[in-house]
Parts: sequence; C-alpha cells; structure tokens
Amino acid sequence: MAAPAVAVDNLNPKVLKCEYAVRGEVVMHAQRLQQQLQTQPGSLPFDEILYCNIGNPQSLGQQPITFFREVLALCDHPCLLEREETKSLFSADAISRATNILASIPGRATGAYSHSQGIKGLRDAIAAGITARDGFPANADDIFLTDGASPGVHMMMQLLIRNEKDGIFCPIPQYPLYSASIALHGGALVPYYLDESTGWGLEVSDLKKQLEDARSKGIDVRALVVINPGNPTGQVLAEENQRDIVKFCKNEGLVLLADEVYQENIYVDNKKFNSFKKIARSMGYNEEDLTLVSFQSVSKGYYGECGKRGGYMEITGFSAPVREQIYKVASVNLCSNITGQILASLVMNAPKVGDASYASYKAEKDGILQSLARRAKALEDAFNNLEGITCNKAEGAMYLFPQIRLPRKAIEAAKAAKKAPDAFYALRLLETTGIVVVPGSGFGQVPGTWHIRCTILPQEEKIPAIISHFKAFHESFMAKYRD
Amino acid sequence: MAAPAVAVDNLNPKVLKCEYAVRGEVVMHAQRLQQQLQTQPGSLPFDEILYCNIGNPQSLGQQPITFFREVLALCDHPCLLEREETKSLFSADAISRATNILASIPGRATGAYSHSQGIKGLRDAIAAGITARDGFPANADDIFLTDGASPGVHMMMQLLIRNEKDGIFCPIPQYPLYSASIALHGGALVPYYLDESTGWGLEVSDLKKQLEDARSKGIDVRALVVINPGNPTGQVLAEENQRDIVKFCKNEGLVLLADEVYQENIYVDNKKFNSFKKIARSMGYNEEDLTLVSFQSVSKGYYGECGKRGGYMEITGFSAPVREQIYKVASVNLCSNITGQILASLVMNAPKVGDASYASYKAEKDGILQSLARRAKALEDAFNNLEGITCNKAEGAMYLFPQIRLPRKAIEAAKAAKKAPDAFYALRLLETTGIVVVPGSGFGQVPGTWHIRCTILPQEEKIPAIISHFKAFHESFMAKYRD
Repeated sequence: MAAPAVAVDNLNPKVLKCEYAVRGEVVMHAQRLQQQLQTQPGSLPFDEILYCNIGNPQSLGQQPITFFREVLALCDHPCLLEREETKSLFSADAISRATNILASIPGRATGAYSHSQGIKGLRDAIAAGITARDGFPANADDIFLTDGASPGVHMMMQLLIRNEKDGIFCPIPQYPLYSASIALHGGALVPYYLDESTGWGLEVSDLKKQLEDARSKGIDVRALVVINPGNPTGQVLAEENQRDIVKFCKNEGLVLLADEVYQENIYVDNKKFNSFKKIARSMGYNEEDLTLVSFQSVSKGYYGECGKRGGYMEITGFSAPVREQIYKVASVNLCSNITGQILASLVMNAPKVGDASYASYKAEKDGILQSLARRAKALEDAFNNLEGITCNKAEGAMYLFPQIRLPRKAIEAAKAAKKAPDAFYALRLLETTGIVVVPGSGFGQVPGTWHIRCTILPQEEKIPAIISHFKAFHESFMAKYRD
Repeated sequence: MAAPAVAVDNLNPKVLKCEYAVRGEVVMHAQRLQQQLQTQPGSLPFDEILYCNIGNPQSLGQQPITFFREVLALCDHPCLLEREETKSLFSADAISRATNILASIPGRATGAYSHSQGIKGLRDAIAAGITARDGFPANADDIFLTDGASPGVHMMMQLLIRNEKDGIFCPIPQYPLYSASIALHGGALVPYYLDESTGWGLEVSDLKKQLEDARSKGIDVRALVVINPGNPTGQVLAEENQRDIVKFCKNEGLVLLADEVYQENIYVDNKKFNSFKKIARSMGYNEEDLTLVSFQSVSKGYYGECGKRGGYMEITGFSAPVREQIYKVASVNLCSNITGQILASLVMNAPKVGDASYASYKAEKDGILQSLARRAKALEDAFNNLEGITCNKAEGAMYLFPQIRLPRKAIEAAKAAKKAPDAFYALRLLETTGIVVVPGSGFGQVPGTWHIRCTILPQEEKIPAIISHFKAFHESFMAKYRD
C-alpha cells in the first residue's frame, strides 16, 4: 500500500525551476575535487581549490575587523563586563559600545526574540547612520533587520508576486538570488540589459522598450531591481543614471528594489556611492512619490562578515496597510538573529575620530579596501591581456565579469559535452588550475556572448600565481580550440 | 501618470490570508500599552506588561547557560584564545571546546558563509548527539542547519506544496507557524483534532477519517505535522501513540514532519521524550519505509536562546534527487548564521561528567527545568480553581492551554465588539492586568470552545502575583457577564 511519499516529479515545480549558479554545478564539482585532494594528495595538477565563485572574503583569509568582534564577544557574554581583566583584553570603546547596546536591549537579553523588525535601539543607530550617510533623515520604523539581504529580497518577492503574470524587472546580467527568488515565488523575470560596451551602463530608453514589451504580453511589472555597485558587473552607477531610474520608477508606478550591499566597496576615485533614497530626496521626491526598498548586508563592505547573516532593508513610500502586511510576514519568522542585528548597527555606526579604537579600525579598514582595489586592478589587467578576453573596470563590488570570445571549436566541444560554452570553459579551468569561477550563463548575458564571474577576493600574495595559472590555462585552451 | 505602485488590494493574496496570532492583535495592543506606561506612568491599572504570549524565556529574565555563552564569545573573538587573561575569565572546557570548534571550521573563519547545510564539523557533533539520544545512528549529511526551526518548516512547505489541492495534516490546536506557512505557500491545511478530554491525545481513527474526507474533496495530502511535546497544548505523546502515527504515515505515504523543539522540556516523571526517528527505527522501519523530518531549535529547551536563531532539521527517507532539490533551496540563502550553528552543536553536545563546567552547567540546567515544572504546576492548579476553567496537565513544552467556558452574555458582548470571544477575553485581561496571552482562536480549537494559551515563563517570584491578578480579573469578568 505504501506510496512513495515524495519524488522529484511530485515536488513544487517552482522549486525545480529555480537555479542558483553561485553554488551550482561548477562549485559542486570543486567540492568533489577538494575531497579528492584530501584523500589522494598529488592526484590533481594543483594543491588547493581557490574559490573565486562567491563573495565570501573571510573564507579566503580576510580577517574580521577587531572592534566589531570585540563588541560581539562582550554582548554574547555580558558577565565579562563585570570583570577587571576585561579592561586589558578589550578596547575601551568596545566596552562602552557593548554596554550601551546591552542597555538598549530590553532586559539586556541578547538571547531573546526581539521586536519583529529588530531591536529598536539598534534600528535607531542604523537610522542615524543612514542619515549621516545621505544627509536626509531616516526613521527607525522604516528599518527591518534581516538575516542577511536574501530574506529581505524573498519577503519583497513574496509580497509583490501574485502569479506568473506579475513581473519583476531585473538587470541582465543579474545576481541569481533575484532569478531564484522570482522563480520560487512563481513570477516573471522581465530583463533589461546592461550595456557592456559603455561599462555596464543602463539605458532608460531600453527600460521603456522592455516595459512596453512586457505589458503587451499581459505582464504586470511590479518592481525594478537595481544592483549598485553592480553584481556581477562591478560598475558604480553615475548620479544622472540613478536620477533617470528614479524618475522612471515614479512615472511607471514601480517599486524600486535597490540592492546596495556593496555601498562600501568602491575602488575608483571618480565614482562615489549614492543611495537611491538620497538621489530621490535630492530630486524632491518624497514618500508619496516613490516606493523604495534599500537592502544592506554585513556580508559585504570591508567587513565581509558573511557568516553572521546580518542585514536590513529600509522601506519608504509604502502605505500603512501595506506596511502592516510586511510586518506580519516578518513576524511569522519572529526576528533575525541578534548577533547579526548588533553587527548591522556597528557597520552603520563604526568607530569615529577620537574613539580609542579609531586608529586601528581605520588601518584595518583602509588596508582591506586598498588591497581589494589593487587586486581588482591586477586581475582586470591580466584578463585584458589575454587573447579574446575583454574586461570592464571593477569600479566597485567584489567581482570582475570578463567576456570571453570562445572559438567555434570550443563551442562545439561544449555542445558535445552537453554544457553551456561558458560552463565548459569554467569546468576546464577548475580541472586544470583549481580556480573556481561562475559561468556567465548563471547570471544571464546577451545571447551569444560568454562570460565568467571571478571574485577579487583571494589574498593579495596569491594573485600573481592565480594570474599565471589562469594565463597558462587560457593559452592552452585557445591553442587547443582556436579556429 | 504615476500609478500607486503597491496597495493592499494588489498584494499577493496568500500574504493577506496568512495570520500569526502569537504576534497578533493582542500583542500589538500590549505594545501600545507598554509605550503608554512609559510616557504616562500610573495611567493604567498595572505597572508592567507581562508577556505570556510567546515562548521567549530570556525576555522574562531567564539567564543564558554560562558555558554556551563562553564558547560563543571565544568563537566570536578568537584572539582571546591567545591571551593569558582568558584562562582566568573562561572555564577550561569552554576554551578547549572553542578551540576544537574553530579547528573544525575551514580557515577558523566564523565570519565566512559555510557549506549550505552548515559547517561539517558541527553537523558531525549534532549527529553524534542524536545518536547518543536515540541509540540509532544519525548522519551529518542528513542535517541541515537553519536560523531556528521556522526556516526549515518553510523550506519543507515550499518543497511539498504545488497548489491549493496539496494538503498538510496539522493538529488542531496547532502552532500558527504551520497555518501561516501553509497559507503563504498556497496549500490546504487539513485538520486533525487533539482530544482535550484525554489530555490532548491523538486518535489514529480520526486521522483516517480526516484523510478520507480530504481525499474525497480532491486534496492530495502530502505530509503530517506532529508537535511533540505539544504546542500550545503541552502534552507528551505516549510511545504507543507515536508508533501508530509512524505506521499511519508509512501506510499512507505521508511525509512525517516532527516538530521536536521541546524535546528537553518534560515536567512529569511518567513521560519521556522519544524522537519519531527512534520510534520508527525501533519498529524496524528504515529510510525506505518512512520519509521523516525532525525539527530542533536552540530557542527552546532549558537554554531558551531564541535570539540566536539556531536550529536544524534532520531529513531521512528522501531520495537523492529530492535531497538535491532541498540542498538547492538551502543554497539560495547561502547558509544559516554561524553563531546559531555553533550553539546548535553545543545544545546537542553539552558538558559531560568530568568536564570542568559540568557541575555549574548541571546546576543551571536543573534549576531552570525544575523551576519551570513548579511554575507549570502552580499555574495549572490556579486555572483549575477558577469558575468555568479547566486545564490539562502541562507535561512538557512551555504552555498551558486552559479551556474557558464563557457565559452567553460575554459571547454577545464580544460579538458586539466584533471580536472572537476568546480574543475579547484576552483583551480585557490585558487591559485589566497587563498580562498578555494568545486567544485560542489563533491556534484553532473545536468550534464553540474557547481557550487561551499562556506560557509558564514569567520568573518564579512573579507567579503568585500573576495568579492573584488573573483570579481577580476572572472573577470580576464572570461577575459582569455571568448568565
């Protein structure tokens, strides 16, 4: 009588449809090779797997910012604040910061569920940080603390997508969290293309065309996702471009979903980060003009605290009844983790001139960001020196997205191996060098073009070897398949 | 031209449908009263709000287990392990445990995203803990670490529910995470009733009847949720009852979703916790016989670390292709928070006889559990001494779910106020005493019966005052509305 309870063909088809290349086929193969290296050392042409597939700085040796970790340790074990030895183990401002944070938590209880939006005192600190960053006021009631940016994105997709006729505008290439989340919630991804030839710029005329096209197919486009600085593309949007986007969303009644998790990662002097809220407010647009969500995360920036799963979304321009629905969905999961909440408040309110930790904090921060800038430039130059590869400037974020003009023979070999050509290239690269990158097809790309996404995160002393291994691989790949 | 981007009437109707009473109307009203107490002290007939609505022990003064917090602090700031002062501030076994945990994390990086299922070394520790608990082997590959139990439940609902014809069996009364998650994923909640007159027992004959009834309506029942110890009902299932449930799920091809988050919370000598996996294995049922998910959380037990958002699900009996889909969905969110992952490994592998912390750990644990048992008994006796109230024994979990036979006049007054009668009662209780409970209608109850859920968590010294305030309120309520 026993029926098979669950099988692939009776699962939710939305789950089957969803894809997530950042941890997809190439990465699973890399994990198998890593096990092989452990069980059979010397059996592969390299000694270690270099994970350039994911923005995970501390997995590649980046050290956490000392001040942040001091505060977290004290909040985890508040008894330390009553002990004399603590003064010699922790910086004075970490002690006072932890004391203040604990005082802002009802009952000093870091082990209690908080308010569903997060601890009010921490949201106050974040709102103050946003206000200082933008020069326009932010409100703690608009902040929802989340376990990283992903749950916030899912929550918005869940709210907006009713059925397959609801569309979400996404850049192509895009970060696959968006395509995965839209697929899981059963909506339609409406693409707009970033223009590689102008440094991954965004043309509002293209947006309009795509919008009309989607509407003519009966798609109700609800929101526009913009990732700035870009992932996987690394560009930093120009202010004028941002104004055009804001105006477009206002005029077309689209929710602007602004992924701003790389706001601290800018590597060029002629660009700076502007939040979309700052842009909108500086245009005189207020709550009634634009519905806007800004996503931030503790996983990125110079801190790179991916494992802590902290982040927030700032929501503005939603009516009170809609906010109640957002609050209700947040409350079904009770709250985000308190360690991540505390860390989100710290990154938005870091040590300042005059604080005991300031000098060491600043040295750590600048050291990381300057090194990332040097690594980005070295990899970018290396890619641009290879046959058939062109790579735009990494102005920000943590990635390069070079285009690889693959020879016809390579494309045929990929076809024979039942792989996308860029996946075929990435798998050969992995098997030859141990370097893990993500094929461009995981992010979307103009049909007929092929890319890889490579993080700039390996430690600086490893970059020369990565470049020489990549170069040797690429040359032999081209020698084998050159038309 | 600007259209309103988003309004309640164009949101996802599944979001609108979802309800979550544990943080619903009564709690929102309590938060308003709490603000009033701050801004206008003395303006209400009580001095503080007593949150008995949610299983959140540390918010009511329960202290964290010292050993667990020592290990977390050391893992957050590993530099401490290199300092001499640390030996006088932390217990020796916390130092060695943190050292071992860090050694099991690639690169000692507590700030890195982990494997999507969680850090392998921590999953090994959890699997060893399950094996020791059950006497049957557990496998680290079956463990998915999660940010509390809720994300695991959502993941399973997402996997199993294709449309409104897919049903999930849930106990009534149930914990509203289940009804909320089923609503959000667009499935059908298929109820089975727990029998209040037999201490919230579960009749398999009733299950069969409900299953046939659902099938006759075209519902494809995919899974059965069982909460043991029970929430909101507090019962601990008898072994024989568990065997019947296992057999029923096997025979009917249902996934058994076992909410076992209260496995450490048992307050009576004649009952003990048995995991459903242990029951199934002891019946000779293996992977091919039963598809089973066990949910565990660091939020409950004697530790009550709700704010850390740690937990896991152990999945067994799923085919490899289905497991790949579960892994894919987990990887879209990258990983659960590492602090919660570490804590989940600690609660499943606590200090043992001979460890430096054992005596103090045991004293803290026993103190909490014994006090909870006394509080449960005191509240249960108090409820049973009131006119029209009957309350089953709290054998486990953190709640009492007394039935209140409301007079006809009270039901009419509720109707006039457009409230469910139990919500009307709970709101009057709140406004009179500051005590926050959840109306039974938020959990489901036999039609025409009315209950409240009240946690046993206020600190022990406050229990006598709570009882006397509750008694005074109830007597005056009954005096006002008695038929």
